[in-house]
Amino acid sequence: MAIALGRFDETFQVASLRAYVAEFVSTLLFVFAGVGSVLAFGALDSGDLSPSGLLAIAVTHAFALFVTVAIAANISGGHVNPAVTFALALGGHITILKAIVYWIAQLLGAVVGCYLLKVSTNGLAPAVHALGSGESALEGVICEIIITFGLVYTVHATAVDPKAGDISKIAPICIGFVVGANILAAGPFSGGSMNPARSFGPAFVSGDWTDHWVYWVGPLVGGAIAAGVFGGVFHSRTHEPIATSDY
Amino acid sequence: MAIALGRFDETFQVASLRAYVAEFVSTLLFVFAGVGSVLAFGALDSGDLSPSGLLAIAVTHAFALFVTVAIAANISGGHVNPAVTFALALGGHITILKAIVYWIAQLLGAVVGCYLLKVSTNGLAPAVHALGSGESALEGVICEIIITFGLVYTVHATAVDPKAGDISKIAPICIGFVVGANILAAGPFSGGSMNPARSFGPAFVSGDWTDHWVYWVGPLVGGAIAAGVFGGVFHSRTHEPIATSDY
Amino acid sequence: MAIALGRFDETFQVASLRAYVAEFVSTLLFVFAGVGSVLAFGALDSGDLSPSGLLAIAVTHAFALFVTVAIAANISGGHVNPAVTFALALGGHITILKAIVYWIAQLLGAVVGCYLLKVSTNGLAPAVHALGSGESALEGVICEIIITFGLVYTVHATAVDPKAGDISKIAPICIGFVVGANILAAGPFSGGSMNPARSFGPAFVSGDWTDHWVYWVGPLVGGAIAAGVFGGVFHSRTHEPIATSDY
Amino acid sequence: MAIALGRFDETFQVASLRAYVAEFVSTLLFVFAGVGSVLAFGALDSGDLSPSGLLAIAVTHAFALFVTVAIAANISGGHVNPAVTFALALGGHITILKAIVYWIAQLLGAVVGCYLLKVSTNGLAPAVHALGSGESALEGVICEIIITFGLVYTVHATAVDPKAGDISKIAPICIGFVVGANILAAGPFSGGSMNPARSFGPAFVSGDWTDHWVYWVGPLVGGAIAAGVFGGVFHSRTHEPIATSDY
Repeated sequence: MAIALGRFDETFQVASLRAYVAEFVSTLLFVFAGVGSVLAFGALDSGDLSPSGLLAIAVTHAFALFVTVAIAANISGGHVNPAVTFALALGGHITILKAIVYWIAQLLGAVVGCYLLKVSTNGLAPAVHALGSGESALEGVICEIIITFGLVYTVHATAVDPKAGDISKIAPICIGFVVGANILAAGPFSGGSMNPARSFGPAFVSGDWTDHWVYWVGPLVGGAIAAGVFGGVFHSRTHEPIATSDY
Repeated sequence: MAIALGRFDETFQVASLRAYVAEFVSTLLFVFAGVGSVLAFGALDSGDLSPSGLLAIAVTHAFALFVTVAIAANISGGHVNPAVTFALALGGHITILKAIVYWIAQLLGAVVGCYLLKVSTNGLAPAVHALGSGESALEGVICEIIITFGLVYTVHATAVDPKAGDISKIAPICIGFVVGANILAAGPFSGGSMNPARSFGPAFVSGDWTDHWVYWVGPLVGGAIAAGVFGGVFHSRTHEPIATSDY
Repeated sequence: MAIALGRFDETFQVASLRAYVAEFVSTLLFVFAGVGSVLAFGALDSGDLSPSGLLAIAVTHAFALFVTVAIAANISGGHVNPAVTFALALGGHITILKAIVYWIAQLLGAVVGCYLLKVSTNGLAPAVHALGSGESALEGVICEIIITFGLVYTVHATAVDPKAGDISKIAPICIGFVVGANILAAGPFSGGSMNPARSFGPAFVSGDWTDHWVYWVGPLVGGAIAAGVFGGVFHSRTHEPIATSDY
Repeated sequence: MAIALGRFDETFQVASLRAYVAEFVSTLLFVFAGVGSVLAFGALDSGDLSPSGLLAIAVTHAFALFVTVAIAANISGGHVNPAVTFALALGGHITILKAIVYWIAQLLGAVVGCYLLKVSTNGLAPAVHALGSGESALEGVICEIIITFGLVYTVHATAVDPKAGDISKIAPICIGFVVGANILAAGPFSGGSMNPARSFGPAFVSGDWTDHWVYWVGPLVGGAIAAGVFGGVFHSRTHEPIATSDY
């Protein structure tokens, strides 16, 4: 662990501001597509989630996260997820001050994305993440911990690790597709969020906060464990901060 | 903004003519596959779009756009979409004169693609983009603005930005897959076009122009906003014109 | 056009023999997976092709062709398709003598793949390509011409063109995915073969040769047109032969 | 064949220990996602596997294996499969001693992944691989031999071959997607394992060992044949050991 607070002036220099815009735009687009696919297949399936519906939702998240990470990668590092930002702050890859603004940008992007979706879909309420039938909140938290661990470990191994080599060139694909695979596995159980911003937007806009804490505790704990495991076992691979800008 | 009219002789030199052929071929192949998948799943589903049908159509567009952008990338820049060409003209990445010929090539490719599809499928009329049940034209326009913003922002961040680095190597995949994700989200609402040529071909061949303007206004406005945001916020990243030919 | 007959001794040197083995193995694996998916979804769907079934079959062909092209790319050029070999022979990228042995290796691989599939699936007869309901043979040929044109044009633009640059690094993905997209569009109409070997294996093993000629005429004509267009319009891009071996 | 026993001290140096952790983590995450998707679609389909369900399960395995191979590639070589480790040991690319610890790490990861899945899903028993209706054990073994041959041949051609060039940069995608294609073809027949660890985890946790031997014999024989064919035909391409660490 190498947490760094950060300097105030550095937090608001031009390159940093551009990074916040990039996180805002990417999270907006990711949440618009992700939540939009849930509404689209809710409409087609008349309520009950069909197998095709879950597959389509997972593919949407995989494709959309891949792309929104890619388009922000060179500007903000392409977090698009407060749990990723949290884990990278724990590892000293981003300062606390910047991480806080990243969170604000991500949550704001998620909320604006959901409002725009509502305006685009004749006023449909964005669907919130929910626990599956028979799933307790504790089980949901455990599930979110494991799948977010997988996501944040992938971020470290492919995008943060300075020795990732050629793998780093396809890091955004890895990050998007691990989320797709995990939604296919966890969707009917925990809901398969791995991302507090993705859960926050629909909850804020619809006003439905049921079990919302699950999608903060699970992802943040899972992300922290991934940062700890990667930093502890492979620490010689992560001693350099990732660039949040190359201007 | 750095709009440039362009010189007439430069517009019709050999490298430029090759670029127009590349745009024509790529748009033809993209529209053939995309509209073909709508017909294919209309046949299998006997009319009503099933969840699998929407997923299949979105995957078709994602794969086909990825490939048709890739095969034109080194020759014409791989626009395959009048909204992309329009946004790049606004940013001065392509001259107005060339952009006009790109549009003609794209629209012609779309029409020929639809005629060839009709000949290949026992005379089926190509399906046109249409607003979902309960969706107003204004809502459709807003939806198309947002998703086309996502597409054109992706084009800028991955293919136009001279600092895109390794991300530029997978730019065609990003461009194809963001369209796939957006169709999965917007398909049952606005129709999920993002591309006036993709909408024009079926409208021209079937003669059904209902709500057709939505698929010009939405994509062109969304593309323009993306060009403005990218140019405004990250302008130091886009001051170089993209090559439309490397001959 | 720059057809070259080739020398007999060069046709049977070690690097060439390795190329034939690579084509045999890749075509065997591609046909096993592709035809296997048709059997698998025929079993699940009890006969009638469902929308999910067609999507699954298309994804199988996309993934399997991508991989089998990739694993042969550095050894044989990764044709895995007599129509590709034919088009490359027309352009002088492979000698006639070698092309003939490539065809033998591909057809043999397809037949062995189908026999192994029969042995693996309790004796199920491999499904043959067939024209959709209401589709005439002529319409099927036109459809196969267009989609094979798309495939072989993609091969030229991404793998043959010496100026393809970074796009050449993802050429196998482009080649696989354009086939996936085209199957989604053409599957219920022409069958969506684009590959005489893929059609020959099941016909030979099941003994059902109905309309089999469609899957030779269409792909060979489509491939030839692609070679002609690419060579004619972009000929300065294809003057170098592709290496069939880098030993 | 160039089997090497290996030295005891080298087997337990720091880089080797990191490799074992990487195999453990990757196999855990792969099995969690893969088996999780079977449970998820079992829940949605109420028992019988639907076409969408098989497609979703195959996509999950493709995405999850791609990513878990990628995240371990630079540390352990990214085997994530005892059949891959076995084949590489036969070719002398990894010592026998290390291969044994790889197997332990992989099997342990699979078991822990299944226990975590049980805890995350309200106690559902992880689904075991099973032969399809009418499929004999011998047919299942043949099927697993062929598809694992395809997988391990792909590993050799894309990740082991020092002449793989640019293809090696997308090796993890090839490895994941060939498994996805093979599951789509073989799922309803042999079950489509190709990986003894993937089969072992659910069998251990559920206590259901029916036909379990099929998923050891088939994959190990198929992997060995691939190692033999690749080493025999293309042996000049594999004379260098693959690095299991680049520290």
